[in-house]
Amino acid sequence: MPATSLPEDISPLTVNRLSVYLRCLRRLQELGETRTSSKALARRFHLSATQIRKDLAQFGEFGIRGVGYEVAELKEGLETLLGVHRTHPAVLVGAGNIGTALARFPGFSSGGFRIFAIFDNDLDKVGRRIRDIEVFHSRDLGRVVAEVGAEIGILAVPAAAAQENCDALVAAGIQAVLNFAPVQLEAGPAVRVKNVDLLIFLEELAFFLK
Amino acid sequence: MPATSLPEDISPLTVNRLSVYLRCLRRLQELGETRTSSKALARRFHLSATQIRKDLAQFGEFGIRGVGYEVAELKEGLETLLGVHRTHPAVLVGAGNIGTALARFPGFSSGGFRIFAIFDNDLDKVGRRIRDIEVFHSRDLGRVVAEVGAEIGILAVPAAAAQENCDALVAAGIQAVLNFAPVQLEAGPAVRVKNVDLLIFLEELAFFLK
Repeated sequence: MPATSLPEDISPLTVNRLSVYLRCLRRLQELGETRTSSKALARRFHLSATQIRKDLAQFGEFGIRGVGYEVAELKEGLETLLGVHRTHPAVLVGAGNIGTALARFPGFSSGGFRIFAIFDNDLDKVGRRIRDIEVFHSRDLGRVVAEVGAEIGILAVPAAAAQENCDALVAAGIQAVLNFAPVQLEAGPAVRVKNVDLLIFLEELAFFLK
Repeated sequence: MPATSLPEDISPLTVNRLSVYLRCLRRLQELGETRTSSKALARRFHLSATQIRKDLAQFGEFGIRGVGYEVAELKEGLETLLGVHRTHPAVLVGAGNIGTALARFPGFSSGGFRIFAIFDNDLDKVGRRIRDIEVFHSRDLGRVVAEVGAEIGILAVPAAAAQENCDALVAAGIQAVLNFAPVQLEAGPAVRVKNVDLLIFLEELAFFLK
């Protein structure tokens, strides 16, 4: 059964867990499995069965009590919930190391997402392609974003250039920004910004190393 | 005053927030500011003053009630707490796009962390350097990890190769693994694994786009 209700106050952490469940279901499907349960998912993927049931219960009726879930049905339900049942057009700003890695990252150009254009102000890079994606000059950002109807902008530029590029994305109509620059961005209340600070992950490990 | 107590049950989320506070304090220090307060930090960096006070209170006495914090003192206290007042030797497995980006990422080779060696099984890459870090053949992983006394292993390999490389890191004595491969790793209870799944961040944005 597809999810019917969509509570307003879902936390990013819940959404992240739904992403993890979706990933597990895709894996089960690859393995040819058609049925599962919160207990089986928990055991196999090192998750919490209680948490799985609690998370899914927020979004309506999935599965049958005491029987479990149809893998395909739950997978499609989660894809719809997460909004990845359709492709979100994206653009990437910055064709340096991280930008190139992201452009080549399979998950960023398949399923729910597709990078349609890359921007850089290095003339040596403009006109080249990373995978099959063209690198445009940053001054063409507004035009190209409108042409491809991009919703998501991925920022992979140095910290000092992040805010101005974020402003350019927002001015071009981008609704969500994934920021890899180690700087806090301001984008106004209508734009969702997700900062990915890679150093924080190392610091978390260091804390627990002691 | 340095932190004296270290509760056992600190969550990764709390640790992540401490990392953010540390970053803000470093920024204030760059700007030449010597005093701050939870309110000033919150206003300036879009944080919650209550949360800052609550988080810091878990680790003993920072600052003076009604007066605020010495920037340098709080910064050093947080560095000690997070374990980044000393350098954690790290190694990186995988010299592909993501590995190269990580090797060149300033935060991964300064302050609390330093990558001492890179491993790859591509003979074209072995012997080369990324920044000033030598690329070794993967078969030398055990020897080199021991020689540099690495504590942290960073995995930037394809999903299919992640578990075997994780096993090799653990066998070599690595205590913490930062994994960029989109796969759940098993490393035993003595090893801390942090999975960074870049696609999850895009999925979070997609959810909130609707």
